[in-house]
Amino acid sequence: MRLSQFLLPVLKEDPSEAQIVSHRLMLRAGMIRQLSAGNYNWLPLGWKVLKNIGQVVREEMDKAGGLELLMPTLQPAELWKESGRYDAYGKEMLRMTDRHDRALLYGPTNEEVITDIVRNNVKSYKQLPLNLYHIQWKFRDEVRPRFGVMRGREFLMKDAYSFDVDAASARTSYVNMFNTYLKIFARLGLKTVPVRADTGPVGGDLSHEFHVLAETGESAVYYEEKWETLFAKESYTFADVEQLYAMADEMHVADKCKVPVKSARGIEVGHVFYLGTKYSEIMKANVMSKEGKEVPAEMGCYGIGVSRLVGAIIEASHDEKGIIWPESIAPFKTAIINLRVNDSKCNEACEALYQQLSIGKQDPLYDDRDASAGEKFATQDLIGTPWQIVVGPKGLEKGVIELKNRKTGEKQEIAADVVMQSISA
Amino acid sequence: MRLSQFLLPVLKEDPSEAQIVSHRLMLRAGMIRQLSAGNYNWLPLGWKVLKNIGQVVREEMDKAGGLELLMPTLQPAELWKESGRYDAYGKEMLRMTDRHDRALLYGPTNEEVITDIVRNNVKSYKQLPLNLYHIQWKFRDEVRPRFGVMRGREFLMKDAYSFDVDAASARTSYVNMFNTYLKIFARLGLKTVPVRADTGPVGGDLSHEFHVLAETGESAVYYEEKWETLFAKESYTFADVEQLYAMADEMHVADKCKVPVKSARGIEVGHVFYLGTKYSEIMKANVMSKEGKEVPAEMGCYGIGVSRLVGAIIEASHDEKGIIWPESIAPFKTAIINLRVNDSKCNEACEALYQQLSIGKQDPLYDDRDASAGEKFATQDLIGTPWQIVVGPKGLEKGVIELKNRKTGEKQEIAADVVMQSISA
Repeated sequence: MRLSQFLLPVLKEDPSEAQIVSHRLMLRAGMIRQLSAGNYNWLPLGWKVLKNIGQVVREEMDKAGGLELLMPTLQPAELWKESGRYDAYGKEMLRMTDRHDRALLYGPTNEEVITDIVRNNVKSYKQLPLNLYHIQWKFRDEVRPRFGVMRGREFLMKDAYSFDVDAASARTSYVNMFNTYLKIFARLGLKTVPVRADTGPVGGDLSHEFHVLAETGESAVYYEEKWETLFAKESYTFADVEQLYAMADEMHVADKCKVPVKSARGIEVGHVFYLGTKYSEIMKANVMSKEGKEVPAEMGCYGIGVSRLVGAIIEASHDEKGIIWPESIAPFKTAIINLRVNDSKCNEACEALYQQLSIGKQDPLYDDRDASAGEKFATQDLIGTPWQIVVGPKGLEKGVIELKNRKTGEKQEIAADVVMQSISA
Repeated sequence: MRLSQFLLPVLKEDPSEAQIVSHRLMLRAGMIRQLSAGNYNWLPLGWKVLKNIGQVVREEMDKAGGLELLMPTLQPAELWKESGRYDAYGKEMLRMTDRHDRALLYGPTNEEVITDIVRNNVKSYKQLPLNLYHIQWKFRDEVRPRFGVMRGREFLMKDAYSFDVDAASARTSYVNMFNTYLKIFARLGLKTVPVRADTGPVGGDLSHEFHVLAETGESAVYYEEKWETLFAKESYTFADVEQLYAMADEMHVADKCKVPVKSARGIEVGHVFYLGTKYSEIMKANVMSKEGKEVPAEMGCYGIGVSRLVGAIIEASHDEKGIIWPESIAPFKTAIINLRVNDSKCNEACEALYQQLSIGKQDPLYDDRDASAGEKFATQDLIGTPWQIVVGPKGLEKGVIELKNRKTGEKQEIAADVVMQSISA
């Protein structure tokens, strides 16, 4: 992508409406613009990141045996009346009536709809276990939307629902999702703590929240020190954390805790629930068991805040210059910075690099604008491009090009013709 | 994907609620299930097709210089009051108020929001031309939703908006999109006729609709015979059709037409408009021209009904057995049909094929169910898998496997070890 042809409205000043760093940086980097309270336009740069995160989630869900489908944003009120949540949900649910006065709502979550799908299309234990998921926009009418996409009203969520014939199998499904979540967050460059959580209005009797530790986190979490040896590891699983203490605020009772704990602020990015038969019983989602008996399906539900993750990753990975994207989800992995657009040698070198990098799937961002070196450096650091190739007349005279790593700040001069290898290595 | 682990609720009987073949086949093939009037759950098979079509649209839009972003489904009423369309739009617009009594609507289209984005973020001709698009769910509250996804209420649409500094450049953008549409429809295996159309409430003074010819089409279209030589070609462009007569119903005046015309039924799958400055003037989306003058941007808008295309493709490509997918968007390109799941040689051969095909990006569908040969053949023909590999004990004794082409019905016996080559060829 040539920057001269891209829509990247970066801001030099901190916007006054943003209180936390991720919101400030998303506005400054031209990733989002507010359309109405808690409701954002995702400009091309932000949308690329959101798609990349969605793709990581999708790949790991598919590997774990999940089946992707898509349920509509609007749902009929009847299903929620059937489950008993229509009145209980309160003002966070956005309700409306259509031209024929039928009551609709904008889905804040999908237990009712997925249970309806399963009761109509699944009849036997032979069709189980099933893990059905979608990545779809939800709406929750927060009283005070704030912190940009971290607490928006229209937000993108991955929600998965597991269906099993008995509780033992449902627990296996739960652990499978638990481990999948740890893999997803690791791929996104995040260290997360899964804490025991209250099941709240969703129901069920087992639940974990996954928290990214960050000073700006809105929740308190409590965990024993041994966690810190896990954080140092590349990855960890359910088995590693099973015996360790980690509690959400409302579950932590200091007196009852027998190990010394640390407290920290966390941003909740995932939540898993074992639901049991709460929805399947009331909505009659029964399956035939191996023994020929009709039993309500055992369910679990598993959410990841996909749009919220964009903010959470920035909270966890930035510096005073801007965002530092993990390569796995960077909107552009590589930038080419042309320091002298009126110099034919610089242009030729940049064009050659741009063409060669574009052959692969790199989709490099070529800053071909007639702007100062300082502005170009600041732009790439702000938008967090992991690899920055700097092409200037002085370097070219020596036959070298500079390669800068956004995260470490490390710069190396490399012979122009071997730059490509360093990047793909 | 192993069919035993997939959610594929095929129906043997024609569902009574479906009046047209695409609706019947989408229900029978387990692609969709109705959630409420005009509102569908996309089950895993249907969702795969919808994603594949979206990806073809995205690739061609990107090649044409489009920049993808995402605008929310819900929009504030203020922008529509500003453009003057809030009252004019009528009952097709789904309106609601949030907990703070602010008026919102579910976007039926996005001219207002995109114009707002551009007026806030684009100031100079140097940032133009711009073509901004998104693939997002829309809602239009049809009085009588019908024909499945062909006339739904919540539907997936790709809408693009071009911004240029003057009318000449805007016309170039229009022709660029016109040709991109022809490419997209050709990749989807469709023959389309772009007909001159009325601009209606969208405004502007130049417009074409793209119609797939099908007996079940809801619109009449009129075109001169020379079109039929174009249909025989691999592809055609704006230049090829510029002088040919082709009109939408409301634009066709038989008396004024100087060439003999044919009439046919068409399914509208795309619509392009040259808007001029209708929205940019009223909403003050001005840019600085090269001459240093503030001028309203010249706009165009370009829609493709992505979810409707699923139905339109089926209308254009099916037989009495079921759907015939073009390979470009097939949910599974290849199926492996195991005729004897209790036979260890059949299982070994199928597993080997499945593993080998899964290494590439084929994502084969392996029918590993304990079901009759007849049921397995019927399922694959119903869901339209382009290539079907049939593995049975008699063939294996001879060292052969059968390869069937869904479209031609052609079957060939192939030595088991060269099957792979035939498929990838």
